[in-house]
Amino acid sequence: MPRVDLETAKEVANFNIEEYLKHRKSVIDRALGRYLKACSQHPQTLYKAVHYGLFPGGKRFRPILTLACGELFGARQRALLPFACALELIHTYSIIHDDLPALDNDDLRRGELAAHKVFGAGIALLAGDALLTEAFHLMTRPQVVRALESTLVLDLIHEIAHAAGIGGMVGGQVVDLESEGKEVDVATVDYIHVRKTGALIHTAARVGAKIGGASGKELRRISRYAEFLGLAFQVTDDILDAEGLSGTTGQPEGRDRERRKATYPGVVGVAAAKGRVQELLERCLKEVEGFGKEADPLRGIARYVTERVQ
Amino acid sequence: MPRVDLETAKEVANFNIEEYLKHRKSVIDRALGRYLKACSQHPQTLYKAVHYGLFPGGKRFRPILTLACGELFGARQRALLPFACALELIHTYSIIHDDLPALDNDDLRRGELAAHKVFGAGIALLAGDALLTEAFHLMTRPQVVRALESTLVLDLIHEIAHAAGIGGMVGGQVVDLESEGKEVDVATVDYIHVRKTGALIHTAARVGAKIGGASGKELRRISRYAEFLGLAFQVTDDILDAEGLSGTTGQPEGRDRERRKATYPGVVGVAAAKGRVQELLERCLKEVEGFGKEADPLRGIARYVTERVQ
Repeated sequence: MPRVDLETAKEVANFNIEEYLKHRKSVIDRALGRYLKACSQHPQTLYKAVHYGLFPGGKRFRPILTLACGELFGARQRALLPFACALELIHTYSIIHDDLPALDNDDLRRGELAAHKVFGAGIALLAGDALLTEAFHLMTRPQVVRALESTLVLDLIHEIAHAAGIGGMVGGQVVDLESEGKEVDVATVDYIHVRKTGALIHTAARVGAKIGGASGKELRRISRYAEFLGLAFQVTDDILDAEGLSGTTGQPEGRDRERRKATYPGVVGVAAAKGRVQELLERCLKEVEGFGKEADPLRGIARYVTERVQ
Repeated sequence: MPRVDLETAKEVANFNIEEYLKHRKSVIDRALGRYLKACSQHPQTLYKAVHYGLFPGGKRFRPILTLACGELFGARQRALLPFACALELIHTYSIIHDDLPALDNDDLRRGELAAHKVFGAGIALLAGDALLTEAFHLMTRPQVVRALESTLVLDLIHEIAHAAGIGGMVGGQVVDLESEGKEVDVATVDYIHVRKTGALIHTAARVGAKIGGASGKELRRISRYAEFLGLAFQVTDDILDAEGLSGTTGQPEGRDRERRKATYPGVVGVAAAKGRVQELLERCLKEVEGFGKEADPLRGIARYVTERVQ
C-alpha cells in the first residue's frame, strides 16, 4: 500500500499543483546545481555550455514525475534525486542536439538563444554528448550505489538507457526526421510520440515507483498513467503549436506546420486532437483512482499538462 | 598472481602479435554483431548508420586491450566482452561525431566515406547518440549483471562514464577544438591527448584488469602501462600525419597540419616526438616486467602500436 510522509500529508490537506510544481522544481534545480558544481574544474567553455543548457531550464517535468511517483510509495528524495536529475540531463542533451543545424536548426529555445547560437555547433554538440555521458556517471556515483540495492540501480540504468536509445528516444527522433514533409498516418505519429517524448516520461515515472518499492500491480498502474500522460503532453504541445499559442511556452509558433512535422492535429485536425487529450486525461485519472489523496500530485500533474488546451 | 588458461598458454609458446590481434579482432567483431542484431528491429536508417559506423571498423584497439588485460588475470571472455564492446561503441560514437561538419568536417574515415557523407549529418548525429546510449544499455543487460558482482559492474560503468565524459574524452575534444590554429605548449598537447584518446584506452585496460580480479598493485601497473600506451598511440598517430604517412591508416594525410591542430610533433618537432615514443614504449615494457610470458600480448601491443614510427 502507498505510504505518505508528513510533508506530503500537509500538502495533500490543501493541495495546490502550482505550489507543488514550484517547490519540486526548486528541489531539482538545487540538486542539478550541486551535481554540476563537481564538473566546474573542467574546460570552462564546456562547463558554461552545459550550464547554459540546464539553467534556467524548463518545467523539469520528467524529474518532478520521478519525485512524485517515488514519494507516492514513500521513497526518500535523496534516493530519487540522482535518477531524477540524470533524466533531466538526458532530456537537456536531447534538446541541445535537436536544435542543432544538422537537425531542427532552431535558433530559439524557451525564448532564449539555443546553445549552438551562443557557443557554436561544435561546442553545443559536445555539450550534449557530455550531458548524456554525465547522466550515467551520476547514476553510478558511490553514494548512489550505497543508498540503494546495486541490482536495482543496474535495473534502473538499463531501463533509462533503453528509453533514451535506439528503441526509445533516438529511434523516435529518426522516424520524426524521416517523416518531415511526408504524408503520415496516426500510427506513425503515435510511434514518434511514444518514443521521442513518451519513452523518457514513462521511464521517469517507473524509476520513481521502482525506487519507492511499488508492487508489480502498482508499477503497472503507474506505467499506464505515465504512458497516457506522455502522449497527452505531446498532443497538447502539438495543438499549441498548431494554434499559434506556443508563444506562451517560448517556442517559435507554427514551426511544426512550417517544417511539415508529423503531428497529431496535423493528421486528425485540432478538434479531434483536443478530444484525444481529454480522453487521455481521463485515462490518467482512472489509473490512479485506487490511490488516496497521496496521489493528488499525479492527478494535479495530469490536469496541469492538459489544461492548456481545455 | 596472474593466472593463465590453456588457450593463452598455447599462444604464449609461440607468440605472434599479428595472429593475436587478428584473432581478438574477430572475437570482438562477432560479439559486436550479436549485440547489434538485437537492435535490428528498430528504425532501419538508424540501424544501418550504426552498422556502418561499427563495421568493418578499425583495429578494435580498445576492446582488444580489455581482453588482453582481463585474460592476463584469468578473466573469461564472456565476462569481458560486454565491456570491451561498450568501449568500442563509445569510441565509434566519438569518431562519428568528430567527423561531423560541426567539428572536424572530415569526409573520409579509414579510407571510406564518413557516416555523415552517407546518411546526412542529422542521422549521423543521432547514430552517434544511439551508440553512446546503447553502450550503457549493453553493460546493464541482465546476463551481464548475473555474471559479475553488481557493485563491480557499477564501478566499471562509473569509470567508463568518467573516461568518456567532461573530465575525459569530451573535455579533451573541447580543448582540442579550442586549440586549433593557436600556439600551444606541450602541457596543452598532453592535456588533450591524455583526455581525448588516453582516457578511454586507460580505462579499457583497467576494466579488463578489474574484471580479472587484479590486486591493487597489479591494477596500478596496468594503469601506468595503459597511460604510457595511450600517449604513445596518439603521438605515433600525430607523427604519421605530420610525415604524410597516414595514408596507410586510411586517414587523409597532413590534415592535422592543415587544420593547425595541437600535435606533439607540431610543438617539439618530429625527431623529438619519435624519441618520446621510444621512451614511452620502454616505460610500457617496464611496467609489465614483473609478469611472465602471459603478459606477452601487452608487450606485443605496445611494440605494435609504436613500431610504425621506428
